[in-house]
Amino acid sequence: MSETLQRLAEIIESRKLANGGNPETSYVARLFSKGDDAILKKIGEEATETVMAAKDARVDGDVSHVLYECADLWFHSMIMLAQFNLTPQDVLNELARREGLSGIEEKANRKLIAREIEETAETKAAKK
Amino acid sequence: MSETLQRLAEIIESRKLANGGNPETSYVARLFSKGDDAILKKIGEEATETVMAAKDARVDGDVSHVLYECADLWFHSMIMLAQFNLTPQDVLNELARREGLSGIEEKANRKLIAREIEETAETKAAKK
Amino acid sequence: MSETLQRLAEIIESRKLANGGNPETSYVARLFSKGDDAILKKIGEEATETVMAAKDARVDGDVSHVLYECADLWFHSMIMLAQFNLTPQDVLNELARREGLSGIEEKANRKLIAREIEETAETKAAKK
Amino acid sequence: MSETLQRLAEIIESRKLANGGNPETSYVARLFSKGDDAILKKIGEEATETVMAAKDARVDGDVSHVLYECADLWFHSMIMLAQFNLTPQDVLNELARREGLSGIEEKANRKLIAREIEETAETKAAKK
Repeated sequence: MSETLQRLAEIIESRKLANGGNPETSYVARLFSKGDDAILKKIGEEATETVMAAKDARVDGDVSHVLYECADLWFHSMIMLAQFNLTPQDVLNELARREGLSGIEEKANRKLIAREIEETAETKAAKK
Repeated sequence: MSETLQRLAEIIESRKLANGGNPETSYVARLFSKGDDAILKKIGEEATETVMAAKDARVDGDVSHVLYECADLWFHSMIMLAQFNLTPQDVLNELARREGLSGIEEKANRKLIAREIEETAETKAAKK
Repeated sequence: MSETLQRLAEIIESRKLANGGNPETSYVARLFSKGDDAILKKIGEEATETVMAAKDARVDGDVSHVLYECADLWFHSMIMLAQFNLTPQDVLNELARREGLSGIEEKANRKLIAREIEETAETKAAKK
Repeated sequence: MSETLQRLAEIIESRKLANGGNPETSYVARLFSKGDDAILKKIGEEATETVMAAKDARVDGDVSHVLYECADLWFHSMIMLAQFNLTPQDVLNELARREGLSGIEEKANRKLIAREIEETAETKAAKK
């Protein structure tokens, strides 16, 4: 695994209350102390901020916020993983598993073809 | 960087139309051919699915869908990064940069303390 | 209640399978037949599409998509309400209840002040 | 239009800075003073909270939070509408326009059929 992900996962793990994390001094410990919903809410928030940053980047050409928000999204994903006793390595394994990628591509392709049928229908309907 | 992320990033890069990606046979190429909004929409969708999977996992104890949806979220994040000529390594660098983590923790802590003030206020208001 | 909301709520109600809704011919009946997650996923999707439409509108000055996506968001909210045996009138009642609005404003104000403290902290941290 | 929506829209309009809204004392004025992104972020947040409340309601049978979060979602949608000089009446008109509903149903039905093809494909792929 990437050293950064590894180190970050260890830090996050150490912030669990059971491992001595202190909600008074650690953001991650504080999120753990608040529980599932506080963590999941952050996933929704960071996803929205990522989308907004990407829309902005297309206008002003500055991709730094896209990077920043995507990092926030991954960081909070990792807190969620830890909350469910999962690790980034588990996610990487899942990605690798799919990566006999004709597999993932084939699946995803059928998915997108279906979506396109839908959007064609939608566009037609919208024009009525 | 993690080999999986590296390999996945290379595959995604190769699916860009400019690199010969074929929307007829590749899901990723198809997303690239549809453009920003199709990709960003997936970020919002996968975030919502991740949140739902996590809520389910707390009830039925099965974390496999959390993993699956989180992998989907990261995978589509990587397509978005490629769309803006960014790489997962850039995200890891950003995470590492913050990781003189007293920094990220301190910032995030002030953030969460503020959130808690807010939620206390909200709870009080809701009880009125 | 608005006649449109009333009529729409009645149509949605009539699409429940128990009320004779037919998933073969009705979109709403089909969503009901698929259940909670299919409906909730739409809330996340339509919210993301609303955000993207609003970002676009600020660039190209065309607000029609904002309206279109917001209508989609409300429409799918109403399907969710029906799924939980709630009505738009219940939402309007909740909004009216809060509307001795010093109440909602006061609460929300404390909420936003907290958010601002947070964002100031965030901005400072980002500049480090 | 519903009196509640009407009254709420008027209050929101009066909170615009140009109409004398005071960010020091009004939550809505404060959101207006912060601009598009602060408002759009709320759409994403409230959508996520609605989804979580609905998941909880299915477990504990208490729908009051679904109602509460849906009201929050509609309330912040109305602030967004005002930010783009749109009104809830515009949304109701759009909903009414579609409501020669064979139209909306037909469109949405093709959309969902496409989605189902996709999900079948996805399920098969997941089982591989």
